[in-house]
Amino acid sequence: MSVHAAWLPAESFVALGSRRVLVHGDGVDTVLDEVTRACARHGGQVRRSPCGDADVDLVLALRQAVPLPVPAAQAARQAAGEPPGDEGFVLTRSGDVTVLLADTPTGLLYGLFHLVRLGAAAFTVDQPTRRHRPALRRRMLDHWDNVSVHPVMGQVERGYAGGSIFWRDGAARHDLARIREYGRLLAAVGINAISVNNVNVGPVEARLLTDRLDDVAEIADVLRPYGIRVHLSVTFAAPVVLGGLPTADPRDEQVRAWWATTTRQVYERIGDFGGYVVKADSEGQPGPFSYGRSHADGANLLAEALAPHGGVVHWRAFVYNHHQDWRDRSTDRARAAYDHFVPLDGDFRTNVVLQVKYGPVDFQPREPVSPVLAAMPATRLAMELQVTQEYTGQQRHVCYLGPWWSELLGFRPWQTPERTVADVVTELVAVSNVGDDPFWCGHPLAQANLYAFGRLAWDPRLDPTAVLDEWIDLTSPPGSTGDTGRVRATLHAIMDDSWRTYERYTAPLGVGFMVDPLRHHYGPNVDGYEYSRWGTYHFADRDGVGVDRTRATGTGYAGQYPPGWAQVYESLADCPDELLLFFHHVPYDHVLHSGSTVIQHIYDTHFTGVAQVETMRERWRQLAGLLDQALFERVAERLDEQVRSATEWRDQINTYFFRKSGVPDAHGRPIH
Amino acid sequence: MSVHAAWLPAESFVALGSRRVLVHGDGVDTVLDEVTRACARHGGQVRRSPCGDADVDLVLALRQAVPLPVPAAQAARQAAGEPPGDEGFVLTRSGDVTVLLADTPTGLLYGLFHLVRLGAAAFTVDQPTRRHRPALRRRMLDHWDNVSVHPVMGQVERGYAGGSIFWRDGAARHDLARIREYGRLLAAVGINAISVNNVNVGPVEARLLTDRLDDVAEIADVLRPYGIRVHLSVTFAAPVVLGGLPTADPRDEQVRAWWATTTRQVYERIGDFGGYVVKADSEGQPGPFSYGRSHADGANLLAEALAPHGGVVHWRAFVYNHHQDWRDRSTDRARAAYDHFVPLDGDFRTNVVLQVKYGPVDFQPREPVSPVLAAMPATRLAMELQVTQEYTGQQRHVCYLGPWWSELLGFRPWQTPERTVADVVTELVAVSNVGDDPFWCGHPLAQANLYAFGRLAWDPRLDPTAVLDEWIDLTSPPGSTGDTGRVRATLHAIMDDSWRTYERYTAPLGVGFMVDPLRHHYGPNVDGYEYSRWGTYHFADRDGVGVDRTRATGTGYAGQYPPGWAQVYESLADCPDELLLFFHHVPYDHVLHSGSTVIQHIYDTHFTGVAQVETMRERWRQLAGLLDQALFERVAERLDEQVRSATEWRDQINTYFFRKSGVPDAHGRPIH
Repeated sequence: MSVHAAWLPAESFVALGSRRVLVHGDGVDTVLDEVTRACARHGGQVRRSPCGDADVDLVLALRQAVPLPVPAAQAARQAAGEPPGDEGFVLTRSGDVTVLLADTPTGLLYGLFHLVRLGAAAFTVDQPTRRHRPALRRRMLDHWDNVSVHPVMGQVERGYAGGSIFWRDGAARHDLARIREYGRLLAAVGINAISVNNVNVGPVEARLLTDRLDDVAEIADVLRPYGIRVHLSVTFAAPVVLGGLPTADPRDEQVRAWWATTTRQVYERIGDFGGYVVKADSEGQPGPFSYGRSHADGANLLAEALAPHGGVVHWRAFVYNHHQDWRDRSTDRARAAYDHFVPLDGDFRTNVVLQVKYGPVDFQPREPVSPVLAAMPATRLAMELQVTQEYTGQQRHVCYLGPWWSELLGFRPWQTPERTVADVVTELVAVSNVGDDPFWCGHPLAQANLYAFGRLAWDPRLDPTAVLDEWIDLTSPPGSTGDTGRVRATLHAIMDDSWRTYERYTAPLGVGFMVDPLRHHYGPNVDGYEYSRWGTYHFADRDGVGVDRTRATGTGYAGQYPPGWAQVYESLADCPDELLLFFHHVPYDHVLHSGSTVIQHIYDTHFTGVAQVETMRERWRQLAGLLDQALFERVAERLDEQVRSATEWRDQINTYFFRKSGVPDAHGRPIH
Repeated sequence: MSVHAAWLPAESFVALGSRRVLVHGDGVDTVLDEVTRACARHGGQVRRSPCGDADVDLVLALRQAVPLPVPAAQAARQAAGEPPGDEGFVLTRSGDVTVLLADTPTGLLYGLFHLVRLGAAAFTVDQPTRRHRPALRRRMLDHWDNVSVHPVMGQVERGYAGGSIFWRDGAARHDLARIREYGRLLAAVGINAISVNNVNVGPVEARLLTDRLDDVAEIADVLRPYGIRVHLSVTFAAPVVLGGLPTADPRDEQVRAWWATTTRQVYERIGDFGGYVVKADSEGQPGPFSYGRSHADGANLLAEALAPHGGVVHWRAFVYNHHQDWRDRSTDRARAAYDHFVPLDGDFRTNVVLQVKYGPVDFQPREPVSPVLAAMPATRLAMELQVTQEYTGQQRHVCYLGPWWSELLGFRPWQTPERTVADVVTELVAVSNVGDDPFWCGHPLAQANLYAFGRLAWDPRLDPTAVLDEWIDLTSPPGSTGDTGRVRATLHAIMDDSWRTYERYTAPLGVGFMVDPLRHHYGPNVDGYEYSRWGTYHFADRDGVGVDRTRATGTGYAGQYPPGWAQVYESLADCPDELLLFFHHVPYDHVLHSGSTVIQHIYDTHFTGVAQVETMRERWRQLAGLLDQALFERVAERLDEQVRSATEWRDQINTYFFRKSGVPDAHGRPIH
């Protein structure tokens, strides 16, 4: 089967492609190519030379082009005011002509895809002049793709969409058409950076930096026309494993020279190379700790090598002791990123981006926002999300994450309305959910998460529900062949609340990590990590459950927040219900703000969650005959699995807590 | 390093090898070879021609040889009485001559190794005439060795001793010297049958039956001189996967013809081929159920093909539903073998051996004896043991299993003194613990289990402690270089009670299966199989623990025993403590026969068990300098791991039950 068009089906270009379009400026080949394709399909015309307003419906032009080719465009330049910048664009209407101006070909391309989103509305008189610029300068996807198939993690670590689009069985795939199509989809949602290999860097992957660099350059060449710069995950031990040096000590002159030379060679091959991504001293990866150096030393070593070429290093803050003793209640993995990194604030070079997971643990469906994000004002910060659904159903469950990310981005660390997380970070990074699956993401509806990630990275203030509808409208809906209104309404109903539904039937009240180690975090296992070295506990006993993270009696994690939130989280009275068990160990009869007890809440949400999934499935089934058959069946199968899995979650969680607490369900529903 | 000599070091042959030995008879090359080697090393003489009593100290002769070569032997033949049979031998003293007579070369070989065990005592006057015959006709080892490396299970399924001695990476190893040495060790303990590939038969392994038969023949050729016949695990689907037939239905004429032809071809190549081993309709393996046929139909199909050639089929009774729903308390995996097979008693051909695991579940350190063994009087039965320590420490823990097997063999199903399990079965089969490790078994002390298995299969009434001492004495001890008395005493102290120690620090009171699925059954995970499809539950809640298997209120499993035992097991007052939780769900404050409550028993045994392992380690450390360094270190490392693992068992089990029960330890020891 051919690859699914995702949010760029031919039909989305009808409004644009049926018009007379003038494309103007140098180096705008990508835009010209899109317009030419659209017009060829939908009966429009493409012009490249100046003309009068009457001869054109749409102008796409670089602002600095002199003279602008049509009077309407000249007028628009006057109206535009402040320059839109490298990636922005200005959209206006002048008379009957829609004008889109940008300073760069990439800006123009983003503008073009904005027109696609607007559809016919772009050509109505009430289109006001508006300047569009991305809120965050880098909007990046990390691919955890391995070049060689890892014996445990496979071709794509935490990948649920088949193989990698870049690599297969130890070598590059050279499937440039697929990569180009991917670049086009990413440009359409404003993503401008990508790292092409897993942060856990194996021996084969390490060599992408040196003798396998051509494979990286090939990808960079394909993605460059879409405004996307390529980054590379590197191993901190590269000077040893690739360079043959006796050490990778960041203070060693030979090591610094090796990185400088190696990096220069990278830039000689890939002039706009983005930089390095590093997971150091974490889960077995090497790092500066081996040499008694700090993570600032480590990050600055690479930053120094990258600086002359305009590159950056993304240094992950995901550093913790993964050999904890479960008997020791004083150690708290949630504290680790803050404890490791906050003392280093101010020590990082300006081209270091500290990449901080959104929560203090590990991409759970519910965590508090990482306190690191509010504690490093002198450091460039990226917040890291996980589009790939490691802990949110592994692309077998419908789980639209837009609302969750929107909550995270809108969190106010200082409880003042002005400054949200989105204002604190300079970029948003996410682990990709894409593979060589014909639907890109395994679950066709998981495309919406990739879409929403790009859109929220461009503008964190977008309403995630509106973004969902935008995605639904663009995909029209995916593979739709019939009653689009009904299909759209159904998709909306299935997806809009699906993250909260997922939260309901999985680990309760923010306690997290009741997942199965054997099935790589898929499905329930309440004690799966309770006696493990990974530092992820819930401490459930016959009397209660939860982790005391207060300063007074617990691990003190709550004290890592600015005082306002520290106080809220530490107070049993004020702590939000959804995070109660993350911050407190409470008895099962503790009464929530909702009025329910903890134990009854567990029962209720789990019964409700499964009922909601059953409704999802029922809704989907009613679309039979209205959709492309392959897509319909793919989603139908996954919904069957979601019902099965959600039921398993419900029954295991309820049974576990019933067996421990001995408290029966107030409504007498079956618990085993 | 060279391969360890196990229980046949050169020193064990001193008494025999320093004498004048007459070897007499045709086809006794293996015996002659052993004697020649021993005498060459220890200064004795080998003779082949008749002589007077004064010229010889030891005669090893076939009884039917006429005339017997020396007067002493002729006298011995008179005294021997009844013939010793195919595998037996007669040992006597006549004047100053020790005489060993047998009817076959294999019997003579067994006699020779008996002399090795006796050492100097074989040459003292008070050696009475005694006939030795094996109690069980077949004493067999099953190798769960894969030809190709299985992606999950590796080269040897449940193997903890390196690779396979037969296969590597998809092909035969052709390491005939190693296989010969293995055959010698097995003959020395009386093992006379071996199956050379895993009961889970993959596509490559299936072909051992046909185009890879030469590899099997090569092994058979090497083992034949040691009295060992080679068997093969086959897939029930062979007619389909190898023969290209549309079905493997046992009633299909083409299928029967295929098996007949194929089997004839096997015997043309390997005249003394032993037969087939089959795991059918179990854990994903194909079987007669696919065709609506019974397991008697299935087994008889193969038996019919083997019968003309004197072969047997070992048909495993390990058939159960491994897709159980943990919510359903009425299904009980323990019942499965009985429910499947007992109704078929009398339907199996005489060359079918039904191979029954010793317990109803799966090789746990404590289970009741399988009721199938007492319920199929018209069927040939083998009891299956597991020498490889899947559930007993995986050859990282010292766990001498002789006492456990002795208990199983001595179990009296009808509570009458006359008939034990050993009287009911015609053979004993065990899964091998041998790999290409230089110490054969990974853990040097695990050799004792292989030794004890062979000895108990020859004579189930042997005292397992005496067998242990025999092994210690023979290995002298393994690698010993110094104070052998101290070494022997220490080994005895470490090993003798080690199975009960293992039982103490793992799952309590017979409830079983609290093992970690992720680490392939190594280490504790109390709820590891509690919500799984494998049918292995303990049902612990805040009030109590255990599985009700009574007829009145439970699964009814206890009713599968003869009335006496059914009554004992069903009675809370009479059920033995060590099986209490296998048969009953009881409150934590239930008082055992020992006077302790269940919960306090859990705490006490777990603290005691770990203390005992620490003592083991301490004892071993005191042998530093007295043993071969490599052997000393190998055991020392494993004891470190055993202490670590036992501590983990103790703490997880105690913590789990403390959190559930809320009952503190009466002695206030640390529980987490």
